Amino acid sequence: MASVDVPVALLGYGTVGAAVDRLLTENADDIERATGHRLRVVKALVRDPDKERAFAPGPGVLTTDFAEIRDDPRIAVVAEVMGGIEPARSHVLDLFRAGKPVATANKQLIAQRSAELFPAASTAGVQLRFEASVCAAIPVIKVLREALVVSNVHRVLGIVNGTTNFILTRMEAGETYADALAEAQRLGFAEADPTDDVSGADAAAKMAILATIAFGSRVTLADVEYEGIESIVPGHILAAREMGMVVRLIGSATLVDGAVDVRVRPALVDRHHPLAVVEGAFNAVMLQGDSIREITLEGPGAGGTETASAVIADMVSIVGTTGTGFLQDDPTWRELRRLPPGELESPFYVRIEVDDRAGVLAHVAERLAARGVSVARLIQHEIDGGAALHVVTHEARAGALEAALADIAVLPETHGTPTKLAVISDRGVAGLGWR
Amino acid sequence: MASVDVPVALLGYGTVGAAVDRLLTENADDIERATGHRLRVVKALVRDPDKERAFAPGPGVLTTDFAEIRDDPRIAVVAEVMGGIEPARSHVLDLFRAGKPVATANKQLIAQRSAELFPAASTAGVQLRFEASVCAAIPVIKVLREALVVSNVHRVLGIVNGTTNFILTRMEAGETYADALAEAQRLGFAEADPTDDVSGADAAAKMAILATIAFGSRVTLADVEYEGIESIVPGHILAAREMGMVVRLIGSATLVDGAVDVRVRPALVDRHHPLAVVEGAFNAVMLQGDSIREITLEGPGAGGTETASAVIADMVSIVGTTGTGFLQDDPTWRELRRLPPGELESPFYVRIEVDDRAGVLAHVAERLAARGVSVARLIQHEIDGGAALHVVTHEARAGALEAALADIAVLPETHGTPTKLAVISDRGVAGLGWR
Repeated sequence: MASVDVPVALLGYGTVGAAVDRLLTENADDIERATGHRLRVVKALVRDPDKERAFAPGPGVLTTDFAEIRDDPRIAVVAEVMGGIEPARSHVLDLFRAGKPVATANKQLIAQRSAELFPAASTAGVQLRFEASVCAAIPVIKVLREALVVSNVHRVLGIVNGTTNFILTRMEAGETYADALAEAQRLGFAEADPTDDVSGADAAAKMAILATIAFGSRVTLADVEYEGIESIVPGHILAAREMGMVVRLIGSATLVDGAVDVRVRPALVDRHHPLAVVEGAFNAVMLQGDSIREITLEGPGAGGTETASAVIADMVSIVGTTGTGFLQDDPTWRELRRLPPGELESPFYVRIEVDDRAGVLAHVAERLAARGVSVARLIQHEIDGGAALHVVTHEARAGALEAALADIAVLPETHGTPTKLAVISDRGVAGLGWR
Repeated sequence: MASVDVPVALLGYGTVGAAVDRLLTENADDIERATGHRLRVVKALVRDPDKERAFAPGPGVLTTDFAEIRDDPRIAVVAEVMGGIEPARSHVLDLFRAGKPVATANKQLIAQRSAELFPAASTAGVQLRFEASVCAAIPVIKVLREALVVSNVHRVLGIVNGTTNFILTRMEAGETYADALAEAQRLGFAEADPTDDVSGADAAAKMAILATIAFGSRVTLADVEYEGIESIVPGHILAAREMGMVVRLIGSATLVDGAVDVRVRPALVDRHHPLAVVEGAFNAVMLQGDSIREITLEGPGAGGTETASAVIADMVSIVGTTGTGFLQDDPTWRELRRLPPGELESPFYVRIEVDDRAGVLAHVAERLAARGVSVARLIQHEIDGGAALHVVTHEARAGALEAALADIAVLPETHGTPTKLAVISDRGVAGLGWR
């Protein structure tokens, strides 16, 4: 097949944009072999064309005038790597109107504005791809949309924030939360203000995108309940270890009887679970579906080159599917209700401090049983002035467990407030005997 | 986009073929939403049309006449799910000549005949996809060809045989090899004659395919050195555990200075490595490349529905990229030499039985040092009539280690022949601090 010259443009030429230009230049032959197309950056929108860049753009590539990109009929596809909601959103909508498909790395844009962007792309008959918006080079969007097209994914579990995972694995090695955070900042994994990461907000945006694509139904950031790792103390890590588990910040998107639950929270993960070995700043996403059982993808969830690699994969895929109708419908095609709070079932870990005397354990166990919560495992420790009960329950409705814990909290022998964390422990995958 | 009716055909209607027909029928709406196309099976080649099937084909679908498929101008894509080299190979070549793209689940066909099939597809200007030929529903081929197009993958590590992984994880739980194999047979994970699995031959065929695609250079089954798990004894498992590792059958494909090394062998895998948690009959493939660092995909590596899911993803991708030139060149575009035997570097585990007396350890250490092999870790155990040395080396050329072990074997204080296993331990991924 004869090579076809494909001029492309970038919105933004920062770390990711410069890496896209560099990788397209260095790998032009590879891309041409696979696609029959030779991609080259002909325009890149920037604010300051005189700023020094990590990779030198070709002469005349940098421009401050968006219209030069929008109105250039040669440009076949545009990568949005500028970040932020505006002007990225307006530019992308303008590009759709001009008939240009877009690959974006912009997590917030998709998590917050997909309700506007997906139909706009569909109406214009162009593609909007966004692999790089979630977990950088881990190709979870492509896998969900193109490889698992008949798998009816009903659950997505993910470690989708590298900063918190780095901190938690450091805490496992004995560091305090404060020291681990300081080190993450020193190494550049965490921002000076780490709130967006440690609060779970960043992970929530990514889970909103993953849930939207996995279930074909709009899930916005506002639909995601999230809780961060600020309250995790070494005691949690130690208790987890004693029970053969580790603490991870887990995003989950679950489809139960036509209702959706999407949340981010710290959880205890069984050591044998694929998500338990995700260490340092790595990310992983597990997809569970009818015809595939479960598939887990793991890799670096951030980085300029990694993100650029995903942007290029999207551009190449757009060029390789243009004109065929592939992925040109709005990927959200149904409305699903939200699972009422408290309805999601999970095993839980509970820590309860009590008086260390006869009968207390029986009282606690009765309160759990009265709400239908059954105990899978229990460890009792002596602590100053009493005992700590570490309980792992079987699958229980979060609401039922909350009610049982409220009952337990008012027992005269209970000290303070019981704490709970979800437990991730998927054993006995059907047909595999065990894993 | 208006729906387009896409008649497709199957070669074979066994477990996988019936599952393809069922999944296409059940998920026709999902596929249409994503692709704009409605796929339906109009013909399926079988030997016995009267045999009972797991899913009832439509009236008139089953045929014993290949020409009905080859010569039907309506048929846009064909899935080869009959297995075996012939007549699958001849049929696929005939389909190419008739201008029909093919999705195949046939591992042996690709591992043994890609040198003929890839150019034939390319000449005909049609696609040959083969996701299901390696690790069933794990989309490693799609990820390599479409997501990692600019990543320069230089190493592929995989657990690509579920039977042996099931046996090894059972042995970890205390079973003997014989008992674990018998259980795998009882559960249907292993054949009555398990040679192809336990010898490493099955894994070798899959690694040949993965290496071919990852490096863009022909690697046939004959190029892959393999060793199975028959010689693994509980002592290996115990020694591994003591050093924080597990035993796994690991396929590796490595590109070093323009030379390729592809092999399958039992190895000790560090507990923190993503491949160490692959348990039971699951498979996993780790891809390491310049711009992505490493991405690991894990999931079920076998199963009729899982395989069918991958076949359908390929059919959908073919329909979605037809006419664009995408993936229509021979994916092997360069000749690479084979790395000379012994040149591949790796850390190794070595077990040496020796007299338990002063000076012996020094002799062994000297022999290793003389060949440039440096010791990372050593554990000494008393055993009947002497001592067992468990040594983990730093990265060493396999040839240098072999030479050192030959030197050690002839020491008067050495008992029997030292044994060695490769060690998989990728720590300190660049830029991540640790993992």
